[in-house]
Amino acid sequence: MTLRSPTPCGAVVLVSGGMDSAVTLAIARARGFACHALSVDYGQRHRSELAAAARVAAMLGAVEHKTVTVDLRAIGGSALTADIAVPEHARAHAVDEIPATYVPARNTIMLAIALGWAETLDAGDIFCGVNAVDYSGYPDCRPAFVEAFERLANLATRAGVEGRHLRVHVPLIRMSKADIVREGLRLGVDFSQTVSCYRADAEGRACGRCDACALRAKGFVDAGVADPTRYV
Amino acid sequence: MTLRSPTPCGAVVLVSGGMDSAVTLAIARARGFACHALSVDYGQRHRSELAAAARVAAMLGAVEHKTVTVDLRAIGGSALTADIAVPEHARAHAVDEIPATYVPARNTIMLAIALGWAETLDAGDIFCGVNAVDYSGYPDCRPAFVEAFERLANLATRAGVEGRHLRVHVPLIRMSKADIVREGLRLGVDFSQTVSCYRADAEGRACGRCDACALRAKGFVDAGVADPTRYV
Repeated sequence: MTLRSPTPCGAVVLVSGGMDSAVTLAIARARGFACHALSVDYGQRHRSELAAAARVAAMLGAVEHKTVTVDLRAIGGSALTADIAVPEHARAHAVDEIPATYVPARNTIMLAIALGWAETLDAGDIFCGVNAVDYSGYPDCRPAFVEAFERLANLATRAGVEGRHLRVHVPLIRMSKADIVREGLRLGVDFSQTVSCYRADAEGRACGRCDACALRAKGFVDAGVADPTRYV
Repeated sequence: MTLRSPTPCGAVVLVSGGMDSAVTLAIARARGFACHALSVDYGQRHRSELAAAARVAAMLGAVEHKTVTVDLRAIGGSALTADIAVPEHARAHAVDEIPATYVPARNTIMLAIALGWAETLDAGDIFCGVNAVDYSGYPDCRPAFVEAFERLANLATRAGVEGRHLRVHVPLIRMSKADIVREGLRLGVDFSQTVSCYRADAEGRACGRCDACALRAKGFVDAGVADPTRYV
């Protein structure tokens, strides 16, 4: 007997406001999950992505949207949370070098919060839009990281103790940005509502010059579709 | 070449304000680490433990103490973060049952934040006071959980990509509460400054009846030393 009623097919979906997590949410919905969209306000400089996340969650039929705050400015160490300039794409970083926009342990922290919410909801599935093809070279986007997190999740929680298997889904992990664009369009994602730019202004308009903008623009070009991004 | 100077022998130590993490900090100091004490304000009802954490960090020679906020009340699911009563020890929970004071994914979240700070500091060591002997039966206190987190930490971070090994130390994991008391006294820990109680009042006085109080009191009894805890 449990005091909490199970949520059949409930999933926690990390939604940042960017294009990847929007497509991830659309995929989770298409697979029949009742999606609890989670955004994390970690003190990121591009705060307009949080407003975009709320729009995306509503647009793509999440049953609810929650924003949890964790003050990563207190630890700094990134161009997104400290007084360090966001580099322009052309000189962003050498191949194999982790760029200044890397936020130490961000995906571990966000997945950990998602895990906590999943436990509270009795949801057995977490979706995350990490991608290891057209990405910025962050260590916490690699398949081995996701596998290690899923293993941890099943040891960390009530679900693990009780023998239920908790799954971490990363449907985009081996997709190119063009594949992500095509999959999103197929599932009805309105990319004009998403914000990927690290330096987006308060209205969510993109700079067009940072790493995130470059990767996003490449996706539309490679997919051969018009780029609906609003630039400053 | 790196823009950040390495901190030789720097360690991040999770310090809750309770007795276990105080002894863990004393052990890390005794091993020669420059200790960066980290507390997490997750909206816990026993907020006086955060004041105790600051006292403990200063008392035991941490080089700095930081409190990072993460709003776990937003996800609830625990007697420590939601409107659920903290059970008294006598009827706390059946053996093998996870009690109501379990906070979903708390240790995963706190270790993840510690990992982020360790990266920012270029510190290769994290200390955590989890214990799997005289403990409350939380899944995220078991050795397998800690091993899985260490594995994740080395995949999640810059250190892992660069081939440096990040270690998660849990020196108390197989100690009894009496062993912890004795080790703390040997290292000069003033337990009167620590707060373990889940229902501690604003001055840090303990209820004497919750699970945390019962385990702590047992430690002093079994070690045969006077209990300096201030009770209401």
